[in-house]
Amino acid sequence: MEPGPPGCSGPAEPGPRLRRLCGADQEASAALLSRAGAEAELQRCVPAVAAVLPAGGSGERMGVPTPKQFCPILDRPLISYTLQALERVCWIKDIVVAVTRENMEAMKAIIQRYQHQRISLVEAGVTRHRSIFSGLKALAQDQPDSQLSKPEVVIIHDAVRPFVEEDVLLKVVTAAKEHGAAGAIRPLVSTVICPSADGCLDQSLDRARHRASEMPQAFLFDVIYEAYQQCSDYDLEFGTECLHLALKYCHIKAKLVEGSPDLWKVTYKRDLYAAESIIKERISQQICMVMDTKEDEEHIGHRLEEMLKNELSVHFLDCKSVPFGQKMENLTQIREFAKEVKKRNILLCGLLIYYPQDEQKLQDSLRQGATIIATLIKERNSGLVGQLLVA
Amino acid sequence: MEPGPPGCSGPAEPGPRLRRLCGADQEASAALLSRAGAEAELQRCVPAVAAVLPAGGSGERMGVPTPKQFCPILDRPLISYTLQALERVCWIKDIVVAVTRENMEAMKAIIQRYQHQRISLVEAGVTRHRSIFSGLKALAQDQPDSQLSKPEVVIIHDAVRPFVEEDVLLKVVTAAKEHGAAGAIRPLVSTVICPSADGCLDQSLDRARHRASEMPQAFLFDVIYEAYQQCSDYDLEFGTECLHLALKYCHIKAKLVEGSPDLWKVTYKRDLYAAESIIKERISQQICMVMDTKEDEEHIGHRLEEMLKNELSVHFLDCKSVPFGQKMENLTQIREFAKEVKKRNILLCGLLIYYPQDEQKLQDSLRQGATIIATLIKERNSGLVGQLLVA
Repeated sequence: MEPGPPGCSGPAEPGPRLRRLCGADQEASAALLSRAGAEAELQRCVPAVAAVLPAGGSGERMGVPTPKQFCPILDRPLISYTLQALERVCWIKDIVVAVTRENMEAMKAIIQRYQHQRISLVEAGVTRHRSIFSGLKALAQDQPDSQLSKPEVVIIHDAVRPFVEEDVLLKVVTAAKEHGAAGAIRPLVSTVICPSADGCLDQSLDRARHRASEMPQAFLFDVIYEAYQQCSDYDLEFGTECLHLALKYCHIKAKLVEGSPDLWKVTYKRDLYAAESIIKERISQQICMVMDTKEDEEHIGHRLEEMLKNELSVHFLDCKSVPFGQKMENLTQIREFAKEVKKRNILLCGLLIYYPQDEQKLQDSLRQGATIIATLIKERNSGLVGQLLVA
Repeated sequence: MEPGPPGCSGPAEPGPRLRRLCGADQEASAALLSRAGAEAELQRCVPAVAAVLPAGGSGERMGVPTPKQFCPILDRPLISYTLQALERVCWIKDIVVAVTRENMEAMKAIIQRYQHQRISLVEAGVTRHRSIFSGLKALAQDQPDSQLSKPEVVIIHDAVRPFVEEDVLLKVVTAAKEHGAAGAIRPLVSTVICPSADGCLDQSLDRARHRASEMPQAFLFDVIYEAYQQCSDYDLEFGTECLHLALKYCHIKAKLVEGSPDLWKVTYKRDLYAAESIIKERISQQICMVMDTKEDEEHIGHRLEEMLKNELSVHFLDCKSVPFGQKMENLTQIREFAKEVKKRNILLCGLLIYYPQDEQKLQDSLRQGATIIATLIKERNSGLVGQLLVA
């Protein structure tokens, strides 16, 4: 038996990539510079943009006591992923989150723990429309105590749609600047029908002619603020659709933008499962193998890389450059070290690779090693940290 | 170190529970008898029922080359779970599956491998409606070469809705017998809008007044067969909604039945993730601990049970009654045995529990053991079989 490289998966928080481009203290690689150039270009064409996130819902459809926006996914609340997705877009100047009074402290703790920035909190209303209106009021210039400035365009997004990408945000913002309002749409998954009062089928709608209205949506701030100021209590209580308010009260026909399947809303418990799998898939694309790159075993590492490269991107690190090494052959020390680094969200396991002379057996052993590595990385379950696995 | 019980999760196929009630060769417990009584009662009121499953789709929305109904979930094709759900309902006499010619052999292999019964295969048409029509034709009595008999009521279901329960099937069948047609509905998750020709918002529908039409649906066979025989080529090419055909061609207003959230259709890749998590959750409720129930370690097992009982149901088995035992202390033998039982879909790992005198340390050790067991059971990942884990 020869000691193999420890299988260790990366931290759960890859960090806000786009925000790094806004900072001045980053090492400037060619790729970053080119991206930063595009970013500067974007800054010139994009108007002043803020975002409002209604997050006052109770999540009754989820069937769990925690409101869905606060449900943990890999130990981190769902809303934190959504905030991260918005923060990465550096041309969104302010993000106003509407939360209920009872969740205000919890939300502040989330912002502190995950170091969210550019966030302002307002108290949510009892309905979605009332929460959005609270957020808009905070952005309007006529609020004397506000730290915020009125944006030209405001994005309205849901706290429970964590996978929103910069390109769709840019599309709705650009379309809103031109048309006054814009929203993402998706094809219908099911036919929509209109039941009669006695619960029978009256009419089924032509699926091809209808679309599901999703988020994000964007509006010229003056348009949507005017619509909310004019709309009735009935609208505020029972309405769900901001585009409808812009149409009804400001006669603005929103531009509809085809969104990607990623825009779906976490609604049911199964959606939490799906979100967890997607997040795992996104954060576990890379592994780093710690090994003595000068020694005989080097080619073993490269054979493992060969087996894993369809699933994962493999990096090598010389074992002399890391603070452990020979010590890690001892099971107790692996466990102690694993306990230590878990605090920094690094899940560490040991992997012993059996290293026989027989080529076929070596091949089997390496294949099993690759399977174990891929399993640990993909499942990312903290229950197995500190274990010494054998291939 | 003392050898602990091996952590071993149950087989992936819990087996068709309801079908067992239809057989005569089962041991009759009181609970089974009471259930069998209800079953007999059901047999009297339920009409002759068959089901048609269109499974000819290409799954283009999934973004993967395999049609979604054949995508593997825990190594088993999605459609096999759906067939299992229908087979469990013993009052469904025949299940007609429409598959494309190119997938016919694959489908036969699935039926054989998972021992599906009461299945007839027909060739799918190029659209969903044409596939359903093929299934109905096979059930109609006027087919001279058919082994099937015409049912009074036919259920139409989707191959990609694996979590259908008996109660909703019974509801749609009962309502179809009374009204001629019935279908499951769900509240809308998103507002539905009607875009104008230039891609702007024309009209948004009142979400509270509309519903999503889901599956299963059920029809008096003569009604739906008549509707399909009369309907136009345009309907067969572009239509999606069977309830609509019954309304348009037979003037039958379908009864709409509120379905559970489980009825959702596997449409996108994220739905496969969700389905996998739900299946894992359903199959991994029970563990069996193999231990010497006479010895000192007994109380260790019960303390583990205490820690696990909120998450899992724990059973004990005396180690003298199983074919391994002392042998399993040897790592190589665990791995060989694990390889052997994996063929029967049993995932076996060893778990060594450190057994110190110090009460606090013992508590820590047991807690870690419970975490490892819960992790292995819930993740159910075959990449870790044969490993000896240490708590």
